Amino acid sequence: MTQSDPRYDVVAIGNAIVDVMAPAHDDDIARLDLAKGGMTLVDEPRAHALYAAMGPAREISGGSAANTLAGLAALGAQCAFIGQVADDQLGEVFAHDIRAGGIAFATPARAGQPATARCLIFVTPDGQRTMNTFLGASQFLPADALDDRVIADAAVLYLEGYLWDPEEPRRAMRRAIATARAAGRKVAFTLSDPFVIARHGDDFRALIAAGEIDILFANEHELAALTGEDDFHAGMAALAPHVPTLVVTRGALGAHAAAGDDHAYVAASPVAHVVDTTGAGDLFAAGFLFGHVRALPLATCLALGAVCAAEIISHYGARPEADLQALVAHLLGE
Amino acid sequence: MTQSDPRYDVVAIGNAIVDVMAPAHDDDIARLDLAKGGMTLVDEPRAHALYAAMGPAREISGGSAANTLAGLAALGAQCAFIGQVADDQLGEVFAHDIRAGGIAFATPARAGQPATARCLIFVTPDGQRTMNTFLGASQFLPADALDDRVIADAAVLYLEGYLWDPEEPRRAMRRAIATARAAGRKVAFTLSDPFVIARHGDDFRALIAAGEIDILFANEHELAALTGEDDFHAGMAALAPHVPTLVVTRGALGAHAAAGDDHAYVAASPVAHVVDTTGAGDLFAAGFLFGHVRALPLATCLALGAVCAAEIISHYGARPEADLQALVAHLLGE
Repeated sequence: MTQSDPRYDVVAIGNAIVDVMAPAHDDDIARLDLAKGGMTLVDEPRAHALYAAMGPAREISGGSAANTLAGLAALGAQCAFIGQVADDQLGEVFAHDIRAGGIAFATPARAGQPATARCLIFVTPDGQRTMNTFLGASQFLPADALDDRVIADAAVLYLEGYLWDPEEPRRAMRRAIATARAAGRKVAFTLSDPFVIARHGDDFRALIAAGEIDILFANEHELAALTGEDDFHAGMAALAPHVPTLVVTRGALGAHAAAGDDHAYVAASPVAHVVDTTGAGDLFAAGFLFGHVRALPLATCLALGAVCAAEIISHYGARPEADLQALVAHLLGE
Repeated sequence: MTQSDPRYDVVAIGNAIVDVMAPAHDDDIARLDLAKGGMTLVDEPRAHALYAAMGPAREISGGSAANTLAGLAALGAQCAFIGQVADDQLGEVFAHDIRAGGIAFATPARAGQPATARCLIFVTPDGQRTMNTFLGASQFLPADALDDRVIADAAVLYLEGYLWDPEEPRRAMRRAIATARAAGRKVAFTLSDPFVIARHGDDFRALIAAGEIDILFANEHELAALTGEDDFHAGMAALAPHVPTLVVTRGALGAHAAAGDDHAYVAASPVAHVVDTTGAGDLFAAGFLFGHVRALPLATCLALGAVCAAEIISHYGARPEADLQALVAHLLGE
């Protein structure tokens, strides 16, 4: 199969979410019965109740795959995003922020209720984030909102596991995988959360077994949930033979990647003060994919991921603030 | 006249605004023809055009007087806010943030258009902020939205000059001044901006001449605009005899206060890295008023203002992030 050079480095399908972030204490987490460090889906009444219990907040565009694209675009990659907002003010905020980052975004806003998705994030003094997501319009991304030409014209299709929960986007993502593979493109997938794996692990394992996933991102907890192996290295050994490129992050313990016989490890980049870990995995994926689409060595891809993750956890919010190109220049020999 | 102890330390009337903040370069300021360092009122089409030209942003509740109350409440003062939002998502954000800060806020949201006010803030690498305000619903605060009992039950009524521009809130503020004075309370006023003084200086001078203003806040540029004196000390000398308490900030040069024969000066508190000066004056006023309602010495009031201003310019946004009570404890002998 002959392929022209793709127009985009990465096209991603993900939740179109605005993060609502506030500092919180550990006793708030306990009092509100939140799952510390995880992502919990909440309905609108619960979202209102949690918002009312939250301190003064700030709103910053988020969404796992969208954060990854923001990082990729900041590094200089060509990107496109597919996701569903409502035609409301938070939808405008999301669309503005992603386009202002230089990312193509053409999914039409959805009229009426529900509102644009938001994620209520309680950030504890240890930098951990506890996320409570009201999916709103995001869960109604229809398969016919996909632009097949964009998907066929991107080197990598990147999908977030979070979006596997709602039915319409799941169908859309399955169609996108078929479109990408028919065009000879790579499919990357991030497992997102252990609870998502608890709900959809069989689907994910079937996709992997069918060879539909070229690049898989996970953290160590997701690796354990997917493989059933509590031991990290046993989990890597079990999964790596089934995925062309496997990338597993371990927080402060660094990250590992395996691609066939090629293995690499990177230590976590030092951070003076961890403010908010929201988006650490998303930005790690951004750095890694940036190296991957440039065919850089596996160890360099990991190092790029580590630098981007370190930037994001040094401030509030999951979109980059510093000049990522300057931060990674030494890794690219520039 | 006998007065009971007031229920609130400060009640403020101000613009109910959400700040939309993004980093910008000086050439963006020039290219977009913005008035660097100032506040410009913009209509909705201009607001849309500027937003489209802005980088990825974050939304944080703002509004000058509301920022001051957020600081006062964080210090432990009892506060109430009066201001007009629309019944939209940004209105919810504003109302949430002010109430979550422990501030009473009962002004009903206004149905329909225009939307909640927003201020598009371009923050340049020198930490300067250039503000472009779409007043939206904020300019329709009606006089009958005032709760006279709340105004009569606050030690200080605090008014922002920005809100003198639109007609309805101006009328509301005039009525509030009369209510406060009839109840034997103090009236504090912040001049907000030299351009506001260019438009309404005659009103402000008339209020001062009539003895309606007990505490006046200005920066050195506003002092010059109001008095016509380019020399700072000449301006202080001209104005101080007409205002019981005059507080003038000079940025990095510190701040001065005059109350009758009592004069005081405070140096600017050191800040490792000035990130964003949005809200510096608002938080200075918060610290000063906190000391004033506790009848602390003039120099201590200024020192409280300096500490609060230093906190706010060390991060993005005009609402406090650090524990202000801890930061000022040494000034209160706690």
